[in-house]
Amino acid sequence: MRKKNKNINAAILIIGNEILSGRTQDLNVSFISLWLNQNCGISIGEVRVIPDVEKIIVKNILDLKKRFNYVFTTGGIGPTHDDITAKSISKALKVKYEFHKEAYTILENYYGKDKFNDGRKKMAKLPRGSKLIYNPSSAAPGFNIKNIFCLPGVPSILKSMIPNLKKYLVKGTVILSKSIYLDTVESRISIELENIQKQFFKKVEIGSYPFFKLGKVGVAVVLRSINKNQMNLCEKKLKNLFKHKKIKIKKDK
Amino acid sequence: MRKKNKNINAAILIIGNEILSGRTQDLNVSFISLWLNQNCGISIGEVRVIPDVEKIIVKNILDLKKRFNYVFTTGGIGPTHDDITAKSISKALKVKYEFHKEAYTILENYYGKDKFNDGRKKMAKLPRGSKLIYNPSSAAPGFNIKNIFCLPGVPSILKSMIPNLKKYLVKGTVILSKSIYLDTVESRISIELENIQKQFFKKVEIGSYPFFKLGKVGVAVVLRSINKNQMNLCEKKLKNLFKHKKIKIKKDK
Repeated sequence: MRKKNKNINAAILIIGNEILSGRTQDLNVSFISLWLNQNCGISIGEVRVIPDVEKIIVKNILDLKKRFNYVFTTGGIGPTHDDITAKSISKALKVKYEFHKEAYTILENYYGKDKFNDGRKKMAKLPRGSKLIYNPSSAAPGFNIKNIFCLPGVPSILKSMIPNLKKYLVKGTVILSKSIYLDTVESRISIELENIQKQFFKKVEIGSYPFFKLGKVGVAVVLRSINKNQMNLCEKKLKNLFKHKKIKIKKDK
Repeated sequence: MRKKNKNINAAILIIGNEILSGRTQDLNVSFISLWLNQNCGISIGEVRVIPDVEKIIVKNILDLKKRFNYVFTTGGIGPTHDDITAKSISKALKVKYEFHKEAYTILENYYGKDKFNDGRKKMAKLPRGSKLIYNPSSAAPGFNIKNIFCLPGVPSILKSMIPNLKKYLVKGTVILSKSIYLDTVESRISIELENIQKQFFKKVEIGSYPFFKLGKVGVAVVLRSINKNQMNLCEKKLKNLFKHKKIKIKKDK
């Protein structure tokens, strides 16, 4: 019986001037994408980085939530004036931006009644109808509303929260991946690679990526597929090709 | 005399399944953004990561080229079947995808006539009317057509080529930036920060970013402005606030 491919896709929306300005290196895209594929069989189809501007957040949320099964946002859920994700999403979805009872209690307990100031209270304000994504690192929760999931920008906190997403997500088919590292340059194999890609059209996706390490060049040929048999067949064809062309396969980069 | 702000903006379009899948960590956004601001006074307003799919590349190019002064693409200009940037941009702009004489000569000289195979020749095919962005690392040039600039995905090659962009770009006003690192948490200063941001509305942009290092937490307050005097004034107000609140300023993260 042929396994049915359940294709579930998602977009990542990074909300943050600090990423756009180049001051901060994003580390979340790669982590979220690998985690979603391995744990939930969900593939990232698009990533956007946008500034902390309400109008722009609203526009992008409305566009992406329509085109993808899920949207994951990072950034903008802290206590300062430039944290406007929850407010902007309320506006996008036309729901009230208000205190979330459970979030309020969590934060009040965390800081203590005396120190639960207005800045801290702000983190309990969410779009009406949100479900919480618990935060084991620093209490301030993320939230889920409709097909939108809002996570923090700080990578270590995001990592600690992401397992709490699982219960909300419908699972798809995991994409398998295999890399072959070659002691060659891309232009020596490009024509043959294209022919093999044609043979496996829509069955295995072949990517080719040059790399450079310690002054040496190489090529990583990456196979991606939901079908293990087809992937093994494709790998075999590729390895025959490389053998025929006397191209050495390396253990890794 | 008041200095006139010449606001020139740009988008980065990352073309690459390997970034979307999480297999490869993007390092180009931060580099390009810092370089453009420091060297040309150009600000990145949006970043998108999209797959190696012609239809999607065409759609995004047409959208971004209209909304931004410049569009910088990375990836997809190599010799393999998954390198489809030049072809897709030809389609988007409705111009011929054809051999570029100078690119052809550069590549033929680099590889030698005997070894100038079809895969290598492909790198000389560009949208008609393209100007070359020379590549001191590996010969294969990038290209510029209209307000679109196409660069490779490999960070070290991209870095070697980027100075060759300068002559094509109209310069804008450089955005100055200053960071203050604090031994505190965001929620202790969020209300006061918001008030100071209101005072400097549209003059200085204040960002607040928590950080974690060796188990200690801190906050980076980042000022961005094109006006040095306003930035210094804002910095002074902030430092008074921190002194008043007995918050220690650190030398760095």
